[in-house]
Amino acid sequence: MAALRGAAARFRGRAPGGARGAAGRQCYDLLVIGGGSGGLACAKEAAQLGKKVAVLDYVEPSPRGTRWGLGGTCVNVGCIPKKLMHQAALLGGMIRDAPHYGWRVAQAPHDWATMADAVQNHVKSLNWGHRVQLQDRKVKYLNVKASFVDAHTVCGVSKGGEETLLSAEHIVIATGGRPRYPTHIEGALEYGITSDDLFWLKESPGKTLVVGASYVALECAGFLTGLGLDTTVMIRSVPLRAFDQQMASLVTEHMAGHGTRVLRGCAPERVEKLPGQQLRVTWVDLASDRKDAGTFDTVLWAIGRVPETASLNLEKAGVRTNPVTGKILVDAQEATSIPHIYAIGDVAEGRPELTPTAIMAGRLLAQRLSGRTSDLMDYSSVPTTVFTPLEYGCVGLSEEAAVARHGEEHVEVYHAFYKPLEFTVPQRDASQCYIKMVCLREPPQLVLGLHFLGPNAGEVTQGFALGIKCGASFQQVIRTVGIHPTCAEEVAKLRISKRSGLDPTVTGC
Amino acid sequence: MAALRGAAARFRGRAPGGARGAAGRQCYDLLVIGGGSGGLACAKEAAQLGKKVAVLDYVEPSPRGTRWGLGGTCVNVGCIPKKLMHQAALLGGMIRDAPHYGWRVAQAPHDWATMADAVQNHVKSLNWGHRVQLQDRKVKYLNVKASFVDAHTVCGVSKGGEETLLSAEHIVIATGGRPRYPTHIEGALEYGITSDDLFWLKESPGKTLVVGASYVALECAGFLTGLGLDTTVMIRSVPLRAFDQQMASLVTEHMAGHGTRVLRGCAPERVEKLPGQQLRVTWVDLASDRKDAGTFDTVLWAIGRVPETASLNLEKAGVRTNPVTGKILVDAQEATSIPHIYAIGDVAEGRPELTPTAIMAGRLLAQRLSGRTSDLMDYSSVPTTVFTPLEYGCVGLSEEAAVARHGEEHVEVYHAFYKPLEFTVPQRDASQCYIKMVCLREPPQLVLGLHFLGPNAGEVTQGFALGIKCGASFQQVIRTVGIHPTCAEEVAKLRISKRSGLDPTVTGC
Repeated sequence: MAALRGAAARFRGRAPGGARGAAGRQCYDLLVIGGGSGGLACAKEAAQLGKKVAVLDYVEPSPRGTRWGLGGTCVNVGCIPKKLMHQAALLGGMIRDAPHYGWRVAQAPHDWATMADAVQNHVKSLNWGHRVQLQDRKVKYLNVKASFVDAHTVCGVSKGGEETLLSAEHIVIATGGRPRYPTHIEGALEYGITSDDLFWLKESPGKTLVVGASYVALECAGFLTGLGLDTTVMIRSVPLRAFDQQMASLVTEHMAGHGTRVLRGCAPERVEKLPGQQLRVTWVDLASDRKDAGTFDTVLWAIGRVPETASLNLEKAGVRTNPVTGKILVDAQEATSIPHIYAIGDVAEGRPELTPTAIMAGRLLAQRLSGRTSDLMDYSSVPTTVFTPLEYGCVGLSEEAAVARHGEEHVEVYHAFYKPLEFTVPQRDASQCYIKMVCLREPPQLVLGLHFLGPNAGEVTQGFALGIKCGASFQQVIRTVGIHPTCAEEVAKLRISKRSGLDPTVTGC
Repeated sequence: MAALRGAAARFRGRAPGGARGAAGRQCYDLLVIGGGSGGLACAKEAAQLGKKVAVLDYVEPSPRGTRWGLGGTCVNVGCIPKKLMHQAALLGGMIRDAPHYGWRVAQAPHDWATMADAVQNHVKSLNWGHRVQLQDRKVKYLNVKASFVDAHTVCGVSKGGEETLLSAEHIVIATGGRPRYPTHIEGALEYGITSDDLFWLKESPGKTLVVGASYVALECAGFLTGLGLDTTVMIRSVPLRAFDQQMASLVTEHMAGHGTRVLRGCAPERVEKLPGQQLRVTWVDLASDRKDAGTFDTVLWAIGRVPETASLNLEKAGVRTNPVTGKILVDAQEATSIPHIYAIGDVAEGRPELTPTAIMAGRLLAQRLSGRTSDLMDYSSVPTTVFTPLEYGCVGLSEEAAVARHGEEHVEVYHAFYKPLEFTVPQRDASQCYIKMVCLREPPQLVLGLHFLGPNAGEVTQGFALGIKCGASFQQVIRTVGIHPTCAEEVAKLRISKRSGLDPTVTGC
């Protein structure tokens, strides 16, 4: 209570949306900490169901000083700018294709500043849209940094140092995560940037070293290459660790074959600034222990993300975290160790770090808190897509996971190398266009997972995710009539099993 | 027998693959008449299952003299060249988008000859591939025009007039169809062309009038417009008659808004050749009975297709046709009125005119004839996509058909107008990007049909076709996690019913 009183004494603001409680604090039905995908979805849904809701959001600038508006990672420094820059890179390929299709177009250089301006303007319009949506739904928005005072009280501190005390029946933590810096590497923090900065650069990053093996690393390296930049990706061990490893290999093989320099089994040791503003990076080849060095304009760390819990004072509320990951421990109800405090999205332990998962979890939580449903979020068979130059969409189990779970003798994998029709005219290389479907071996061969590498993988994969949710079997897949000519029809045309040893290359029409 | 003996007397050729019967005829387990998608699939499958098979294929040149190789409509004058020219047109849009994404590219003119050469070369490589595949599978290929001598005997006449008599235990008719000419219109046959010619033109068709309301008409008008040609489409009554009519309206609305001149309720009356090689077309506005005329370089008839049965002498075999459509009457086994003669694909009554349907039907027929299975082709919920500039993918029932079958009070339609993320940066108009899902109203709301209008509609729709095959309900759709950011995720995000009257426009992220 001493701490509470102290905070209350410093309380000055009063929000119109919040009733002022006994100790001068604002009282809500639901407090949401974090204005990202999960938090906003939860807040809006609860408000729509009649709850009095406040969202507390505060963007701590990156170490390089990059800052942004409401909407969280996805909108500002994730999915949205990433997909737009990926699209920009894909357009480069389209311009190369165009003359083969009869367009008398000359190859053109890319101007980062124009693209960045367009992307950043779109993101700002989304920031604004989120503000308007909260207002429309009478959700109180506070641009404050939140920390727990006790299990029922949160203190919000504004940029100017002004404090607000808030309490609520239910509190949802949805603060997400931020890129990890390799602080043990000399010069990493001073000279490196992360994806938080990349999407807000006004000028081209130039020759870039991307360090990491995550999908963020590969996606960034992919679009930088596609925009014509000299790009290297440095991978310590295996790329896309949580994904099917055959698919991961094909993804990097495609990148290596299309202009990205891929350094495998290497770890950076030092970043120094050269007189001419360039960065000299020293690294070690882990197999040979040989040192090597290179000069870059930009070093981008994409080595993972850390949950954003440091300033929350979780211990004051009694909310427990996993000491290894730092993530908040949750149960199937999304409840933390303190029953009226919940955590959703990237900050919660064991959840896929994906916008649509956080949104759906947030909505369902709001519906449960409002007594509308008792339905829990189903985290199984969540589809996703890696937007590397050749996109990789997947849903369900990897081949390795299926074998581990069911045993090799009970798993049948159907696969195909195929050539997208659109690749034929410009004679694009389709060596890595590959599909595999992981099934139980016993008829009717339940589908356990689908892995699709090719153009528009996200568009292709979504519908199949519904099929898998509906318990699709391989028998049903092959009885589904294809849509011709598409890449997606190749999924319905899968017939060759890995076990057969037959050539899985699709020929002809 | 007189006719048979007469034909046998003229028999000269002898194929290595066919055993010579008593009367000098070649005997097979299976004769397939027509080397298109369905025929080839059936022939190859039967051969793989150990049958002795021959395929008879002969391309009657179009009235304008266009001819092509093995593979049927899809490969030569349908899906394949159409999709490639559609892709060429889409690339025009990409080039317009590119500067917004930072590419310093100048707008460029399109050269038809370059595109046509590339497309035609690809088609020729497919012709060749089909020949090789038949050879590999020991299917005898005869480039002859087939006609029945009796129910067990077919006479094949080569281009040079050489005749071959063939008989088989089973005969499959898979001759498909050809574009219909409006022979009652003066000048139609002399001066008009059809899709059979368009895809093989060496030079640009120039200013083009496309007559028809079929998907062929709209697709051709769409890509001609996209390639920069002055294009008019003339529609007598409603476009895309067999499709959901709301979607059909949006398709033509989009075309009209993007450069195609759409003349509704008009019917051509006369085509005349002007001195300067141009064509003057006179038409009547059916509502006002007012006459109008215009000058074009090319007039393309796309008013429907006629089954290719005229030269088959079906009456000699006793095979019955529908006197109205001219198509061959078939049962669920694909058998005609003569039990050992079958018909598949476009020539068969009541079948969707789609390559993948014909292929699957052909394969299943071959499997049944070989005693491998008794499974019948399932013609319900066949997905398809119309490759208009904004693509339209669908599977299952239209809204009209669902209401007619189940009654309006038992049907719930969920819908959304959405904006593809990629449209934002170049500020593309997304007014017609629309999705609707037709469901039963009673929980769990079985999905009856899905209609998707937007980029990559074919890729999006395929997986959902599997879902619908697996009996997906609306409840399962909304519990399927989206893949962000894609257009396909908008399907999983459908929440607004038409009945609610709420605004179905998707806002924000």
